[in-house]
Order: sequence, then C-alpha cells, then structure tokens
Amino acid sequence: MVTPEYNYANVDSYLALGEDIKLDDYLVAVYKIDSALPLDKAAATIAAEQSTGTWTNVVTSSKTILEKYGAKVVEINKNENTAYIAFPKEDLSYHIGGIPGLMAIIAGNLFGLHALNGVKLIDVIFPKDFAEIFPGPRYGIEGIRKIVGTEKEKRPHLGTIIKPKIGLNPEETAQVAYEAAIGGVDFIKDDETLVDQDFCPMDERVPRVMEKLDLVKQETGRTVLYSVNITTGGQEILSIADAVKGMGANMVMVDAITAGFSAIQSLAKDEVFDLPIHVHRTMHGAITRYPNHGIDMLVFAKLDRLAGGDQLHTGTAAGKMAHNPQHVKEMDDFLRDPNFFGKKTVFPVASGGVYPQLVPENIKVLGNDLVINAGGGIHGHPDGTRAGATAMKQAIDASVKGITLEEYAKDHKELATALKEWK
Amino acid sequence: MVTPEYNYANVDSYLALGEDIKLDDYLVAVYKIDSALPLDKAAATIAAEQSTGTWTNVVTSSKTILEKYGAKVVEINKNENTAYIAFPKEDLSYHIGGIPGLMAIIAGNLFGLHALNGVKLIDVIFPKDFAEIFPGPRYGIEGIRKIVGTEKEKRPHLGTIIKPKIGLNPEETAQVAYEAAIGGVDFIKDDETLVDQDFCPMDERVPRVMEKLDLVKQETGRTVLYSVNITTGGQEILSIADAVKGMGANMVMVDAITAGFSAIQSLAKDEVFDLPIHVHRTMHGAITRYPNHGIDMLVFAKLDRLAGGDQLHTGTAAGKMAHNPQHVKEMDDFLRDPNFFGKKTVFPVASGGVYPQLVPENIKVLGNDLVINAGGGIHGHPDGTRAGATAMKQAIDASVKGITLEEYAKDHKELATALKEWK
Repeated sequence: MVTPEYNYANVDSYLALGEDIKLDDYLVAVYKIDSALPLDKAAATIAAEQSTGTWTNVVTSSKTILEKYGAKVVEINKNENTAYIAFPKEDLSYHIGGIPGLMAIIAGNLFGLHALNGVKLIDVIFPKDFAEIFPGPRYGIEGIRKIVGTEKEKRPHLGTIIKPKIGLNPEETAQVAYEAAIGGVDFIKDDETLVDQDFCPMDERVPRVMEKLDLVKQETGRTVLYSVNITTGGQEILSIADAVKGMGANMVMVDAITAGFSAIQSLAKDEVFDLPIHVHRTMHGAITRYPNHGIDMLVFAKLDRLAGGDQLHTGTAAGKMAHNPQHVKEMDDFLRDPNFFGKKTVFPVASGGVYPQLVPENIKVLGNDLVINAGGGIHGHPDGTRAGATAMKQAIDASVKGITLEEYAKDHKELATALKEWK
Repeated sequence: MVTPEYNYANVDSYLALGEDIKLDDYLVAVYKIDSALPLDKAAATIAAEQSTGTWTNVVTSSKTILEKYGAKVVEINKNENTAYIAFPKEDLSYHIGGIPGLMAIIAGNLFGLHALNGVKLIDVIFPKDFAEIFPGPRYGIEGIRKIVGTEKEKRPHLGTIIKPKIGLNPEETAQVAYEAAIGGVDFIKDDETLVDQDFCPMDERVPRVMEKLDLVKQETGRTVLYSVNITTGGQEILSIADAVKGMGANMVMVDAITAGFSAIQSLAKDEVFDLPIHVHRTMHGAITRYPNHGIDMLVFAKLDRLAGGDQLHTGTAAGKMAHNPQHVKEMDDFLRDPNFFGKKTVFPVASGGVYPQLVPENIKVLGNDLVINAGGGIHGHPDGTRAGATAMKQAIDASVKGITLEEYAKDHKELATALKEWK
C-alpha cells in the first residue's frame, strides 16, 4: 500500500553523490533548490521526475531502464542549496526536438513539483556531441567587427534603439536612423515591440532606412548595421528574413524568449540566409528575475550561443534594468570565451536606460568587447538624435582613452550638453 | 535637468482612469502589481514602457504619437492590486509577429522594471479583429468526441501517459499502448520528454503503436487516439507532423511553452496537416507558479485556444501538481465556453499524479467535458497497465453514475485492487 504523498518512488536510486562521470556522456544541469525536504531528496525528486521516475512504482519500468536512463544527483552543495544532476546523453533527442526538447528535460515539469517551494536552473554543461548539433553564431564578435571596421580598434560598439518604441512612420524612422548613424552609432535596432505594424510596415521601413544608411556610407565611409525586428513564429521567420535581406537589410533582430531559440537556430544554420542576428531577450524577466525560481539568464546565454545569435542582450552594469553587474560580467565573459565547443563568440549588448554618464562604469565592469546601446540616452539629448549619438560616442572614446567625461567634455560640446542634461 | 531614477517621463499622461473604451479598438491586459510606487503610477510605468514611453523625454516623439499609440491605464483596483491597461490595436502587428510579437507588447520588458518588485499578467482581452487572425482549434471538444465516439455519452475521456517517461523501446511502447487501450483508455500520449531519442525513434515508435491501436479497433470497435510528441522548433514542426501523419498517427502533441504557441498555430492553420493537437505545458511552472510575478496560466489557455490546440493541460482538482482547483475550473470553463470569437472549444486535460481515488473529486470540480490522464495511476496498478486502465475507467463510470468508488468496487475487481493499492 502506497500513500501517494508524491515523494517519488525509489527516490534514493537517483542519488549518486560523488560518482565520477565523464562529461562527454552526460548533460549536467545545476539547480538551486528551495524545499522542506533534505537537499539530496529534493534533488533526487527532480532527477526522477525529469528522467525515468514518477510518484509511484510502475510495472512497465525496469532496473535496466533506471540504470541506463535515470538521471542522477552527482553533487550537492548545502551552503548554496545547489545540486548537480547528470542526465545520460541517451535521454536527449539528437535529431528532432532541439532546444524545445532539451528544455522539457532540464527545465520542464520540475517547476511545478509540490515537493519544492522553488527551484532555479542556474547552469547547464553540455556533452560535446550534443553541442555539436547546433550551428553557433555565423559572425560572432570578430565577424561583426569586420563588417563595421573595428577589428583593429577593438573599442565598444555604440548602438541605438529607434525611439519612441512605436509610432514613427517609415520615413521618420529612416530619418532618426540617419541622424543616429551620422552622429556616430555603429548599430541601430528596432525596438522589441515594433515588427510590422500598419503605421510602419516592414517593407517600407527597411528600404528607407537602408537608403539612409547607404547615404551615411557615401558620406562617411562607415558601415552601420540596422537590425530589423523580424520576430515571429519559427515557421515563417526564415521567409521573412529572406524578404528583409532582399530589401537590403544587413542584420536582423529576434526576440528569443517569445519566438524561441529554435527560430534563431533555423536562421543561423540556413544555407541561403547569411546576415548577423541580434538577439533581444524581452520577457526574460518573467523567468529570470526571481532568485529562487525559474531559469538563470546564463542558461539562456548558453542557448543563444548554441543556437547562433551573434549579439545578445545580457544587461548593463549601470542602467534602468541593471540588477547584478557581476552576473552580467559573468555572462559577457562566457559569451566572449573562445572555448565553447568551437562556436564563435557572441557580442554582448548592454542596453536599457544607458546615457553618457553611465558609459565609463559599463566599460569598466564589462570591458571593450561590448555593444553599448542607448535609446533615451541618445534621442533624449536636448540637441537631438545626432548630438545624442555623438555625445555617447564621445563618452565611449573618453572611457577607452582613460579620460574622465568631465575632462573630455571641455572640448566636446555634445558630451558637455549631455552631462548637464542628466545627472 | 533630469535625474534618471527611471520614473518614466510624462508618466501621468498614460493614466486614463475611468475612460470608456471600445473593446473592439483595444487589447486590454490585466496586471497584478507589486510596487512601492502608488498603483496608478506603477501601472502607468508599464503602459509607458510597453508602448511609447521611456525613462526620459525623447525629441523624436510627439504629442500625436503619444495620443495615438500610447497605452493607457483605464482601471485600477487597489484591493486586488490590479490594473487594466488598454493598448490601442494600432500597437499590434497583424501580419507578421503573431503571438511572439504580441508577447513583446503585453509580457515583455515590464518584468524587468526597477520600479516594480513583481508583476503578473493575469488576463488578456483581445480585440475582435486581432483574435480573428488566429485559426483556433480544428476539432475542439466536439470534434475529438466524434473521433472517439463519445459525442452522445459526454463522459470524461480517459487518457494515459506512457510510463516510464523514457526508456521503453518502440515495441515495448506499443505493447504498453495496447494494454492501456484494451483496458479502456480513449487517449494515449508520449511523455513530454520523449521525442525522438535513439532508444525509441519516432519512425519506429509511431507505426508500431498505430498497428496495435488498429488491432484494438478490430477487437473492440473503439478508436483510441495516440498523440505523438513532435515538439521541436517551428520551422521543422510542420514537416515532422506531416511525416508522423504519413506513419499513421491520428494525433500529435506539442509542448507549447518550449516550442512556442506559433508552432501550434502553424499546425492548426496548415492546409494539408489535419490531425488534432494535444498541447502540453511543460516549463509553465517557471512562469506561472509565483502569485506575484510572471504570467497566469489563464493567459496561456487563451493563447492556446487562439493558436489552435485541441486539448490543453490545465492541471487537476486533485493530483501531484494541483495548486488551486478553482483556478483550474476557471480555465476549463474558459476553454469550454462556446463564445470566444467563434473559435472551437478546447478539451481541458487534468493530468499529474491522478489515480482512481482522485477521479470523483476531479469530475466533481471540473465537470464531464474533461480528459482525465493517469500515468503512474494506471501503469502502477499491481496487476499491470490493462487492469490499471480498467480501474481508472471504472472510477470514471462510477463517478458519472453517481456511485461511490467503494460501492462500485464491489463488483469491479480492478478498481477494488486499485483502492487497496493507493490510499
């Protein structure tokens, strides 16, 4: 007789603390666990639910199945309430399933388990041959620097978001893009809520913006990237990406949490489409924000690099959405680490409430291999977008040269104005 | 001079408390807000960030843009800490973007705002013409009942999840499916972590299971549905769906949170693919579980019905993952409500730790238009899967007839054994 309190059947058989495992043979997921159960039991419950177990013994299972496919808790850390769970790579679907299939295993039902008050997936270590099925970025930092022409300079790129988020028509959008580009940005993006609304249809917006950026190229010799927000379902995204490429676009943008990382993967591995991909993370806060429940942004950063996003928003060291500068740095360092299954690097993007005064801190903490985005911090400049972009560029130049903004502002008037506008 | 504390510029202009709006012209999103700011200011901050605002005035905006495209807080309820925010339908992307584009607007950056401690999207009311771009379910409850032959009986359907979740080979899977079907289930599903692993490839599993279900049809005259888990990225899912249909499958299953609701939409609106779609919600707990942050499952239920899932897991009134029976009932009632922009209904699925003893409570709270799933509660029966399925079916029959399980067990031995096994 079993009283089904949903303490999992045979839960101890999912414990293998201290067992040496070959990282090539397992996917290891790291969880921070909040539970009234002892940490090892709570972790074993996750291992059971996410592999071969359920709340009662089933006659259809066997010792062989459990031994071959059961996940196991190989390490726990009681100080940090973390557990390392190793999933035999046989549990993974290599041909069909991709990132959605993976998430069902490492980030699925466990979030609803009664036995846990909260659980956060904080890291994932992939077995080599699973990582190899993903394309990784097509360009990475070096590839994007080559397009923009900063491969020797190695300074942070300056980006802007067209503001207001929505409401400008294609002509106005193109004009704002022009001003920002002439002012000094390397990169322009649609805001994450703009896709193809009637007030600014994609097929009118893209040609007009690109026409203006061609003009910038003629006038200054500089190539400026414009990432068109093509966020939509995976089935359509490739044809839309091809269409905007046909309109002259030199980059696309995708909201990865809402569209799914598979959408990025399908773009990154396509044989015809070949533009760099800027990856936004809107909605991530619904999943990443709570410290004791959900999924850490680092996991999404790893998925992005596997799937093939060339640029990824990871947050700022100072800005309107900053939470933990050291954690942002940790993610940025991961994205820039040359060693990740042979995948190219990803350009980290610091975005959200950045204005010139915050540039030195962002660069100091996050480094030079960084895209620094400003929306309000450029278009909110009292003298307009062009001056705003110039002021931001001056702030970057000053920081790279190790000169204080106050000093640099003495003979850079746009920066001087910005320093007066925002404190 | 502006001190950027990220209190949004002109935040009061996003307040329109008490304003009468035409529901055909706006999408209304309802948020539960936890903030140190007054509720109206906090709500206005969301309205600003998600439409035309940012943390500072931008020279590129205009009064016209704000008036035409600014979202507005039309109602707040201080007792419940809720706010109703109306987004002009012009803010929505009707042609490209779909559900991912929608989520960026109603469930995007707001989750990361400094000004809020937490925010939960608890409901959405769609403007008619936006809802009309989505296909809705192809079958719905009536369509699925017709396939199974219960359109007159109107009793709850009995479903099972093949257990163990992973590890059975195609032959074993087919045998378990056969036993369950003969025992009395109407519906069989792969577990959410099984897709196409090497130990049980889809192209061997599907033909073998369907062969067994054909046998069941010959032996009993009953049609049993088998939903194959085809979860993967949107780009591939349609071709995989077509492939499994070619293998004889009569239903497919998709994990909607990991694959994205667009994947379901693309299946539901396709002109060739025409099978019913069972929608699993694995990973939803990462987003839905916390009462004060994230997205309520009701919102996902609405997205599922728009996108076209024919069956959807909404939880149980009693089971291993039950949290709030009344909330499950509320979602189930929504899915069964005939009035939702002309979309067909969705069969709600009660799944997770259900066994015969819990059947009466689930039916009592959730009603007869319900799929009751049992995995462990069937395959954990001491006499095996067939007896387990029969015991569950007996529990349903007893409940529908208004007979207690104890009484019914007197001349139904499988149920009697189950009542002894689980207490």
